[in-house]
Amino acid sequence: MTDTPREIETLIDLLARLPGLGPRSARRAVLALLKKRATLMAPLAQAMSQVASSARDCRVCGNISTADLCPICADPRRATGEICVVEDVADLWAMERGALFKGRYHVLGGTLSALDGLGPDELRIPALVERVRDDGITEVILALNATVDGQTTAHYIADALEGSGAAVSTLAQGVPIGGELDYLDDGTIGAALRARRRL
Amino acid sequence: MTDTPREIETLIDLLARLPGLGPRSARRAVLALLKKRATLMAPLAQAMSQVASSARDCRVCGNISTADLCPICADPRRATGEICVVEDVADLWAMERGALFKGRYHVLGGTLSALDGLGPDELRIPALVERVRDDGITEVILALNATVDGQTTAHYIADALEGSGAAVSTLAQGVPIGGELDYLDDGTIGAALRARRRL
Repeated sequence: MTDTPREIETLIDLLARLPGLGPRSARRAVLALLKKRATLMAPLAQAMSQVASSARDCRVCGNISTADLCPICADPRRATGEICVVEDVADLWAMERGALFKGRYHVLGGTLSALDGLGPDELRIPALVERVRDDGITEVILALNATVDGQTTAHYIADALEGSGAAVSTLAQGVPIGGELDYLDDGTIGAALRARRRL
Repeated sequence: MTDTPREIETLIDLLARLPGLGPRSARRAVLALLKKRATLMAPLAQAMSQVASSARDCRVCGNISTADLCPICADPRRATGEICVVEDVADLWAMERGALFKGRYHVLGGTLSALDGLGPDELRIPALVERVRDDGITEVILALNATVDGQTTAHYIADALEGSGAAVSTLAQGVPIGGELDYLDDGTIGAALRARRRL
């Protein structure tokens, strides 16, 4: 469109790069923002600018944080002996949603991938090994995605932690809660069958 | 979630208020922003803050603008005698997408609605009447939505402009390009039938 002010076009183009928004929905979002300039647009711009300037990786675990230590690493009530290893911050948030895990995290920043050129050194794996060695960690729970890359990474980490003294475990695989067998793939049913429990 | 930094939670809450985004997709969008802090988040925050502080309504037509006059009203190549009346800026953008209309616009800011308490004075209708009277307008095209409120507003405006000397027209109704009769409602087919053209 030629006759939209250039600043507004720029804003639409940038918003369209967010996941879940395309050019059309970004345009709609900008119109909604323009209608609520004072109550929504200005506070959103300010919140975004504040996070953009203050957000960084937690020095210890790699979680997103606005301080040197993330709220989880800084929380004295969280158990220090257990580390849950996740691929990225989204997975950490997914684990925290259940509020079941009381230990601390280690965010890898991805999975090992020859295709993407991601090796152990790109993934904060050395930092994990060091942390386990120096901080008296007793258990490492590998909460990686049940994909080929995720499982490759899990095995690599298990090898790297051998001899560290920490127990290494991984999330159970099986039928998800509410899952219907008819809709599950053979791999999941197979894993659930092999890991069957006595009632 | 208790352990996400408060600034990030604020950002998610604000983003979730955009149309097309919910709490979950806002969270995903924020994660994407956090991964591209320098290349996407900071520029987006800046663009948004700039638009929030500079955007205003065009003094003449009510279009969104960053100057006193919007680019369309300021463009000397646009015909001054024709005004296309639209409900809001989204409709103006939709008209401009085709680049078929060469005149200028008048943005009402809504349609007459007893339920929402929107009367003519809330809708820039007096400004339209004044503009038609003072600026030598020869044609007013009512490009309002084909809804009950839109059509009520169109009739109200046509009445208000009676005796102004300007011809008042409205968009044709009929079968949309590519439309299949089987999927069209009776109202549209009826309108298309009444407005049939000789081949």
